[in-house]
Amino acid sequence: MAACIGLTFTHQHNMSPEKYLRYLVPFSLFGTERTKQILQATPTDDVVRKDADKTQITVYHYDSTHLESTELQKVEESFPFRDQPQVSWINVDGLCKPDVEKAGAHYGIHPLIIEDILSMGQRPKMDEVEGILYCLLNMLYFNSKTNSVEQEQISIVLGQNYVITFQEDPSRDVFDPIREKLKINNSKLRQRGADYLCYTMLDLIVDNYFFVMEKLGACIESAEEEVIRNSNTRSLARINFLRKELIVLKRNIAPVRDLIGGIIRSESELLDDRTTKYFKDVYDHIIQAYDLSENYRDIMISMQDLYINNVNLKMNEVMKVMAIVTCLLAPATVIGGVFGMNFDVIPTAHNTWGFYTAVGAMLLIPVWMLVMFKRRGWF
Amino acid sequence: MAACIGLTFTHQHNMSPEKYLRYLVPFSLFGTERTKQILQATPTDDVVRKDADKTQITVYHYDSTHLESTELQKVEESFPFRDQPQVSWINVDGLCKPDVEKAGAHYGIHPLIIEDILSMGQRPKMDEVEGILYCLLNMLYFNSKTNSVEQEQISIVLGQNYVITFQEDPSRDVFDPIREKLKINNSKLRQRGADYLCYTMLDLIVDNYFFVMEKLGACIESAEEEVIRNSNTRSLARINFLRKELIVLKRNIAPVRDLIGGIIRSESELLDDRTTKYFKDVYDHIIQAYDLSENYRDIMISMQDLYINNVNLKMNEVMKVMAIVTCLLAPATVIGGVFGMNFDVIPTAHNTWGFYTAVGAMLLIPVWMLVMFKRRGWF
Amino acid sequence: MAACIGLTFTHQHNMSPEKYLRYLVPFSLFGTERTKQILQATPTDDVVRKDADKTQITVYHYDSTHLESTELQKVEESFPFRDQPQVSWINVDGLCKPDVEKAGAHYGIHPLIIEDILSMGQRPKMDEVEGILYCLLNMLYFNSKTNSVEQEQISIVLGQNYVITFQEDPSRDVFDPIREKLKINNSKLRQRGADYLCYTMLDLIVDNYFFVMEKLGACIESAEEEVIRNSNTRSLARINFLRKELIVLKRNIAPVRDLIGGIIRSESELLDDRTTKYFKDVYDHIIQAYDLSENYRDIMISMQDLYINNVNLKMNEVMKVMAIVTCLLAPATVIGGVFGMNFDVIPTAHNTWGFYTAVGAMLLIPVWMLVMFKRRGWF
Amino acid sequence: MAACIGLTFTHQHNMSPEKYLRYLVPFSLFGTERTKQILQATPTDDVVRKDADKTQITVYHYDSTHLESTELQKVEESFPFRDQPQVSWINVDGLCKPDVEKAGAHYGIHPLIIEDILSMGQRPKMDEVEGILYCLLNMLYFNSKTNSVEQEQISIVLGQNYVITFQEDPSRDVFDPIREKLKINNSKLRQRGADYLCYTMLDLIVDNYFFVMEKLGACIESAEEEVIRNSNTRSLARINFLRKELIVLKRNIAPVRDLIGGIIRSESELLDDRTTKYFKDVYDHIIQAYDLSENYRDIMISMQDLYINNVNLKMNEVMKVMAIVTCLLAPATVIGGVFGMNFDVIPTAHNTWGFYTAVGAMLLIPVWMLVMFKRRGWF
Amino acid sequence: MAACIGLTFTHQHNMSPEKYLRYLVPFSLFGTERTKQILQATPTDDVVRKDADKTQITVYHYDSTHLESTELQKVEESFPFRDQPQVSWINVDGLCKPDVEKAGAHYGIHPLIIEDILSMGQRPKMDEVEGILYCLLNMLYFNSKTNSVEQEQISIVLGQNYVITFQEDPSRDVFDPIREKLKINNSKLRQRGADYLCYTMLDLIVDNYFFVMEKLGACIESAEEEVIRNSNTRSLARINFLRKELIVLKRNIAPVRDLIGGIIRSESELLDDRTTKYFKDVYDHIIQAYDLSENYRDIMISMQDLYINNVNLKMNEVMKVMAIVTCLLAPATVIGGVFGMNFDVIPTAHNTWGFYTAVGAMLLIPVWMLVMFKRRGWF
Repeated sequence: MAACIGLTFTHQHNMSPEKYLRYLVPFSLFGTERTKQILQATPTDDVVRKDADKTQITVYHYDSTHLESTELQKVEESFPFRDQPQVSWINVDGLCKPDVEKAGAHYGIHPLIIEDILSMGQRPKMDEVEGILYCLLNMLYFNSKTNSVEQEQISIVLGQNYVITFQEDPSRDVFDPIREKLKINNSKLRQRGADYLCYTMLDLIVDNYFFVMEKLGACIESAEEEVIRNSNTRSLARINFLRKELIVLKRNIAPVRDLIGGIIRSESELLDDRTTKYFKDVYDHIIQAYDLSENYRDIMISMQDLYINNVNLKMNEVMKVMAIVTCLLAPATVIGGVFGMNFDVIPTAHNTWGFYTAVGAMLLIPVWMLVMFKRRGWF
Repeated sequence: MAACIGLTFTHQHNMSPEKYLRYLVPFSLFGTERTKQILQATPTDDVVRKDADKTQITVYHYDSTHLESTELQKVEESFPFRDQPQVSWINVDGLCKPDVEKAGAHYGIHPLIIEDILSMGQRPKMDEVEGILYCLLNMLYFNSKTNSVEQEQISIVLGQNYVITFQEDPSRDVFDPIREKLKINNSKLRQRGADYLCYTMLDLIVDNYFFVMEKLGACIESAEEEVIRNSNTRSLARINFLRKELIVLKRNIAPVRDLIGGIIRSESELLDDRTTKYFKDVYDHIIQAYDLSENYRDIMISMQDLYINNVNLKMNEVMKVMAIVTCLLAPATVIGGVFGMNFDVIPTAHNTWGFYTAVGAMLLIPVWMLVMFKRRGWF
Repeated sequence: MAACIGLTFTHQHNMSPEKYLRYLVPFSLFGTERTKQILQATPTDDVVRKDADKTQITVYHYDSTHLESTELQKVEESFPFRDQPQVSWINVDGLCKPDVEKAGAHYGIHPLIIEDILSMGQRPKMDEVEGILYCLLNMLYFNSKTNSVEQEQISIVLGQNYVITFQEDPSRDVFDPIREKLKINNSKLRQRGADYLCYTMLDLIVDNYFFVMEKLGACIESAEEEVIRNSNTRSLARINFLRKELIVLKRNIAPVRDLIGGIIRSESELLDDRTTKYFKDVYDHIIQAYDLSENYRDIMISMQDLYINNVNLKMNEVMKVMAIVTCLLAPATVIGGVFGMNFDVIPTAHNTWGFYTAVGAMLLIPVWMLVMFKRRGWF
Repeated sequence: MAACIGLTFTHQHNMSPEKYLRYLVPFSLFGTERTKQILQATPTDDVVRKDADKTQITVYHYDSTHLESTELQKVEESFPFRDQPQVSWINVDGLCKPDVEKAGAHYGIHPLIIEDILSMGQRPKMDEVEGILYCLLNMLYFNSKTNSVEQEQISIVLGQNYVITFQEDPSRDVFDPIREKLKINNSKLRQRGADYLCYTMLDLIVDNYFFVMEKLGACIESAEEEVIRNSNTRSLARINFLRKELIVLKRNIAPVRDLIGGIIRSESELLDDRTTKYFKDVYDHIIQAYDLSENYRDIMISMQDLYINNVNLKMNEVMKVMAIVTCLLAPATVIGGVFGMNFDVIPTAHNTWGFYTAVGAMLLIPVWMLVMFKRRGWF
Repeated sequence: MAACIGLTFTHQHNMSPEKYLRYLVPFSLFGTERTKQILQATPTDDVVRKDADKTQITVYHYDSTHLESTELQKVEESFPFRDQPQVSWINVDGLCKPDVEKAGAHYGIHPLIIEDILSMGQRPKMDEVEGILYCLLNMLYFNSKTNSVEQEQISIVLGQNYVITFQEDPSRDVFDPIREKLKINNSKLRQRGADYLCYTMLDLIVDNYFFVMEKLGACIESAEEEVIRNSNTRSLARINFLRKELIVLKRNIAPVRDLIGGIIRSESELLDDRTTKYFKDVYDHIIQAYDLSENYRDIMISMQDLYINNVNLKMNEVMKVMAIVTCLLAPATVIGGVFGMNFDVIPTAHNTWGFYTAVGAMLLIPVWMLVMFKRRGWF
């Protein structure tokens, strides 16, 4: 009965399903949430996005010698920047349907593109419509708390002398280096036109993909170490979790390849020939990012194989112990049974050394068996 | 014997094959039915479709200022709408061979297309024949009761100033938003020609795919949660069931890509240049739907892996308990056997504390073993 | 010993390898045969085909108003039909090398094509050589007795005003509907030229693929039901068997796609522009057949997964029962051992109720364990 | 102890690892050797091939009426054949660097091609350089002793009126049918030019691929039969072995497709238009060979699945027996324990029929259990 | 208890998790390190590379008759070599940002290319910018100590009469054969232009890939032998380790294919028509390398399957032993229990030969069972 209590005790603390669930919970619940996000199909004709409370508009208006940076209250205030010879970057943070539509009407953006800007969960794409080049893609961020990849949709509209960017979240973007470089007189960015500004934006977005991948790579690495050290359910949950993040990653990177390829092949007059080379550079980077994400996937598959093998290995170990215990116990149990029979005539039963001989046999036979097993390379 | 009865009892209520079957039945029988539908190969030269009892014909005849909506009794009554400058949408609900053939003869639809309209289980496709643009595809609905995807074939014939749609089921379609918009004077739909009407139809059909996918996504998500919480046969049945729904989904979405791509590449005079942009928008959506269905597939594969792992895990747990029980019992059984032997001389047999010492050893050895196992990280 | 006899008995009737083999035999031996056929690589420069004993030649000679149908004894008798304005269908049943070569010489068929007609196991293909359009493909039949797909090679030679078909087996083909339609004066077939006749043949062959697939689909469906109800070795044999049939199917369908695509792209003068539309229709069908065969494959893979899962499930059930029996027996065995020891002083040994208390403990502990296991969700 | 001896005995003869190894050895060691060959990466700038001891040169010099066949001692003796109107086939057996270089210099073969001729382990390819068409591919032989595919590199140089072939091994090639046909006056081969000779060679090489595949197919078939009858380690070794042979096969066939495709697309003046049709025929054959090798692969995968399933099945059988034995023994052991306890008061202990009742219960309970298991469909 | 001690002992030496970890450690820790390297995503706009302490510049300045080889201290000293009719090879070992930028400015290398030269972890690529042909790829080395593939980035800039190479590590490269050949007057390398020098470099780099693959192939082969002989955790660790090396290999080889393909398609004036043939030769080699790496992958997959099968086999063996021991022990245990019951009337209990009969039965029944099992082909 002691064994049984011990077992029960053990159980409650080590092998109860509840505990496994407890291990799983932080990951798995989040995981289901993640699945929800990945599976999300966005109906595309209705704008389901909740309008932002407040639209922040920032305008950078510059040429190589002058820079003017203004915070605007209304979208209409940005309209005068359109037809000036200097380059303007009009950054709209927080998407508010009426403002975006007003801007679209003024800048001659096609209604379908306005719809795309306002919609959610779009696949990255580029379009050239009526003298405007439009890119929609996602900026990725790595959330260190949840170890997950977050995305924010950004729309870039490249016109004759201006670039308009529409972002969802005013609190973050990846364009701080642009803001820094714009402050430097005669910097390359200040000398070149709006297309170079657009290139710089795409370059920063793609570079940030690498940053996110590096963080994710660190997670994969630590998951691998965990799998090697101790393959438990938690490792499996981590592998599953990371696989989902890789789906998010790939879903964002793969179409950006086409997007940038489209810009390079485009013969739009908005793009200076000298800038094409720069877009080709971004293209090389996005190809590299794609290759890398494939490598990540290979590593994950190989890790899952490793996990399964380790789990099997542990189980095989348990099986071996069982087999050996069963074999070693066999003679002792049988000998005990033999001399426990209630026959009148049991040889050596009345012998003084009988008991010791029997117990000796009980001890020696297992030792001999162990030697045999050892020789056979069983353990 | 108590153990045995207990076992039997347990069995009848918990592990009997019948019970598993009972779990499986609602899903699996339906599943086989589904397989039947998926595997269905439709002979294509004979029209096996049973003729509809009644053909309902509705005509919307409009330009930007006037709208006339009529319910017709006979297909011949729709013929005058053909050669008028306004746009006509002739919606035929319920396919009746003689009516369709009459309409085909009047509107100059090629006999092969008439055959396609009347046939069943066709692969989505588009065709341009003799001044007519023909699209055949399926509308998908999500049946919330059976959690399955249902499909209804629709044929869209775009002519000079008219669009004819042939549907199987009069009780449902996805065109209600069109009916709403048609009622609004000077709405975009009313201002533009028949090609824009055709675009709106395809757009609504594709948008409805997203709606269906969202519902299916919710099923996948709940299946995943079930797999994580409690991996039993029922979860497996659900995974199998969902895999089949994904086959249905993919089978419908993949060829629609080619269909819409074909319309964009088409140089038909029926399509206004301004409308091309709208078809490109639908093309973006269908690509997105396809990508999404691939993501669904990845999630399903990853879920099946999770299921298998969970099932293995549970079994490993059982194995561990067996191994531990076997080991813990070993010394007690052997000690009991040793002192149960009928030798005359058994040391400590006449000692008052002999019994208590033996039982103490029986209890202490398992405790010591538990400590050893614990240290070794066995549980 | 009773247990042992029982076991042996059980064994002979239920689990002996011989029995499994008996299950397997009808399928597996046939299966190996099938593998032989699938793996068959036919050396291509020697004609290994055994010449048919008898060549049956049937000629249909028709225009829209007249039809002449003749059974010929010799291949030479068909030669006059060549240069007449009416359309001739010369159907050669049973391939006899000298006859085929004679016909080839007369109709100007290239020696390489003659070789192809006479060879076996060719991959479907089309060729345009010296004013002749040549198609080689297989007619598929479904053998309901063996549930397997049988194939018969057919060569179709389309010339200026004639179609020559070479078949292996005089007893069957898929052209009966043609024979029916030919009897109808002014039927479309009678009005159009030889290219339309050729289209009708390909259409019937491809339509018959759907018929075969439907039959195979029914087999797959019944196999699935068997797997769900009772996953035994027989189901595995069936799955393996069906996988081989799918290889046969795919091997025949995939290249026919290229064949018909080639006819559509061909600019041969033998093909009327009006007929191209009909070939496109056949092309749509063969694409659909190919898609369907991919769906069949997906269903088979999913079924095999289901099988493996069911087998594992059964084994897990057995493991659980073992674990539970082991645990439930543990206390009874130990208690029996404890009170079986031959010490002089055994507490409660002389107590009248000692025996009943011990047996009571033996019964109560398992019951308590069962309750514990139940609560833990173990079964 | 008897059990134990029995077990040991059993072991030495049936389950010892050594025995498994013995099974594996003939295959596996060879297998590693094979892996070595497959993995062999040949550095390509140094000619590592050991020069042949002796170069055998045979020249066939022919037109439709004359044939001259000569064995040459030196490569220089073949030089006069170059500029004659008749066709010459110069067959060089045994590759000796100085000879090949001398020939290369005379016939205007580019140094890089000379390097290719002398190198080993090259990927099949074709090249057109300076008025010469060069093909490098492998002849495959099936070694019936080791059941493995052997390869011999052959270089075919097609010039204006000559074909030079370079082979490694003088003892064998696949060109005997050419030698036969050359002896026949006015045979097609004798009437046509050097390009037709080149076609005949490629045709024979590709036909021989089918011969090798047929032999390999027979091995696969016999392996499948073995797997079905008796899935043991030996079958696994065979499957692994055959998988490697398939890699060798595919590695040789896949690039030959491109090679012959290249010849067909080539616009070299060396190729008569009439011969193109023949190369297309070879192309059809090599496509067929490739398809077939894919089928072989599918069969192998399906066979491996079968193997794994059979092994699992056997194990499940063992598990079932264990479970049943455990359950059947349970009551007897417990009953024995109950009445073996040393209490003073044991009911029925002094009853004459007590012993027989207990033993009867020991026998009846298992029988009852067997009936129960049977009903539940457990075995 | 002896059994238990033996078990414990056994355990510590043979099956303890620590030991498995010890096996794994040298591989796995390195493995994680490797994963880190493979997963490394390099942000590309900042130059993160640490500047080399010292830049070594070596210039080979040659035409067919003269060779001048100089070690330079400063990058500026290499500038005069630019505009001379002879060919110059300027080899820069150790990348120092200011030096590279100075050289870039002088030789007219685009700033983006300068960035690429200085960056790390780039994907191999080629570019043609402003009269310069730029190749970036990796040289691979095989580290025999760690059995891993190491890579060093090299940038090759081909200008009018010069080739500039930028290497990271001054201590090693694969260009020694070039240095040898340059010393030989009138060698082909000395006679041809800078494009031939560039070809020679690419050829040597690609040839070295084969060298590395051969070494890796030897590792794979020895791993396979280990798997066949003794499938333990160490083998699994090796397989995982090798899989990662194959990812590194493929990652380097695949894009080099595009690189060299790009050079062949390039119409740059820097490339002599005669040299194209040589680049095609390199292209053949890199295709072969790629094919080979695919073969490596197939072998690895097949090896992993073999491993899993062997592990399962071992476990099955253990299971069989368990089953047999359980069955053989069954009768002895039950017989012991039967005659150990404390009934007054036990038949044959007072018989002299009772004990011997019972023990005889205990021995004979297992022997009979063994014979039965044997006949059934169980072991």
